[in-house]
Amino acid sequence: MYKLVLIRHGESVWNQENRFTGWQDVDLSEKGRAEALKGGKALKDKGFSFDIAYTSVLKRAIKTLDIVLDELDQVWLPVHKDWRLNERHYGALQGLNKSETAARHGEEQVKIWRRSYDVPPPPMDAKDPRHPSHDPRYKDVNPQLLPSQESLKDTVARFLPLWTGTIAPTIKGGKKVLIVAHGNSLRALIQYLEGMTPDQIMAVNMPTGIPLMYELDANFKVLHKEFIGDPEEVKAAMDAVANQGKAK
Amino acid sequence: MYKLVLIRHGESVWNQENRFTGWQDVDLSEKGRAEALKGGKALKDKGFSFDIAYTSVLKRAIKTLDIVLDELDQVWLPVHKDWRLNERHYGALQGLNKSETAARHGEEQVKIWRRSYDVPPPPMDAKDPRHPSHDPRYKDVNPQLLPSQESLKDTVARFLPLWTGTIAPTIKGGKKVLIVAHGNSLRALIQYLEGMTPDQIMAVNMPTGIPLMYELDANFKVLHKEFIGDPEEVKAAMDAVANQGKAK
Repeated sequence: MYKLVLIRHGESVWNQENRFTGWQDVDLSEKGRAEALKGGKALKDKGFSFDIAYTSVLKRAIKTLDIVLDELDQVWLPVHKDWRLNERHYGALQGLNKSETAARHGEEQVKIWRRSYDVPPPPMDAKDPRHPSHDPRYKDVNPQLLPSQESLKDTVARFLPLWTGTIAPTIKGGKKVLIVAHGNSLRALIQYLEGMTPDQIMAVNMPTGIPLMYELDANFKVLHKEFIGDPEEVKAAMDAVANQGKAK
Repeated sequence: MYKLVLIRHGESVWNQENRFTGWQDVDLSEKGRAEALKGGKALKDKGFSFDIAYTSVLKRAIKTLDIVLDELDQVWLPVHKDWRLNERHYGALQGLNKSETAARHGEEQVKIWRRSYDVPPPPMDAKDPRHPSHDPRYKDVNPQLLPSQESLKDTVARFLPLWTGTIAPTIKGGKKVLIVAHGNSLRALIQYLEGMTPDQIMAVNMPTGIPLMYELDANFKVLHKEFIGDPEEVKAAMDAVANQGKAK
């Protein structure tokens, strides 16, 4: 039997401002750091330790991981940072306040972009200086793989090769794996692990900073899953995420 | 021509207490974090950026690197943590206050242990729970390579395979490399790069938190070296390190 732990990064300064963040490299808020610390403490209290960690190339996930590892006294852990764990790329919506976007494009259209599985938002212009093709952190990535926009379906498609090619074999090799990533890259993994339909995964809202542990059998069938932390806080956090999509 | 930057971690809480630290995984002090931040700012001011970073598996080096990368807005950088960049292993002296050690073993003996190139301190008992063979961070390392005590010569011997096998080829592959490590693992590299004798390298005291840049030709001959930071602070820091060995 294998154990796998997932953590969604703590609140970022743009989550606070209710902006579409995507691949924009914004920092954790003070609240986000506190969430990460609480997640680390919850794992420590339950005696968790890890052999390797995977995270994205975005600092809100990396710093969440750093805080968790410090709490576990595992700062020395090997960390693999990979763009395929990045958040969904929100294309031309990145940087826009969600309420502004609703006012501009209509609440219905925004709901489609946010809640549909396979409808991508409008693309980011390839000449936009924020486009991934201009960012040195992606210079070793095949440019044809770098997105200008992504639906959740697209996010799943770029994440899965990392899972099947790297993370899953590592787990099967006996390593205890921790993944710290983003709402939608974790949805990609959860959908795959649990065999969910598009509608089912769209209804899943991963809370920030609360570790989710999976127990898997030898064929990676899910035997058990459990949030690690205070049950009431788990429920409150999940409700808060579910309300985020509603227009203000 | 290649550029390579080295940084010695900022002050740790045991540096403050003047204890033999070695492989003990003690944290940065408040002053140490400030030194790291200043080092990062100095690199940023000069427009430095990197492609990959190497550090030890000890948190005072890793956290110094994290602070520097945050300042450079390169938190996403690939980081390779390797035990061969650890500080010299101080054997049975680890954890002892340097003045106490001098009182117990005599100032002359301590001077020999600290200042000679090839005389190791007394070994740490293999049954000591602090011995590296009991520490999960070294579980993938060949146990025969794990030290119970090290002279600087021993530190050089275990560091060089990492340099010749991994770091040097990476530099020759065109990557801009940052190394954040420890007083003696950096001495090992500096001795090798500059072709110093044992006596020469024993006289070198790398200041904490002040980046040292090397310019190397195609054959890794040193063309130029330069501390990055305020010249007076560089000198003051180097003098402070030189005084550390004197009995109080």
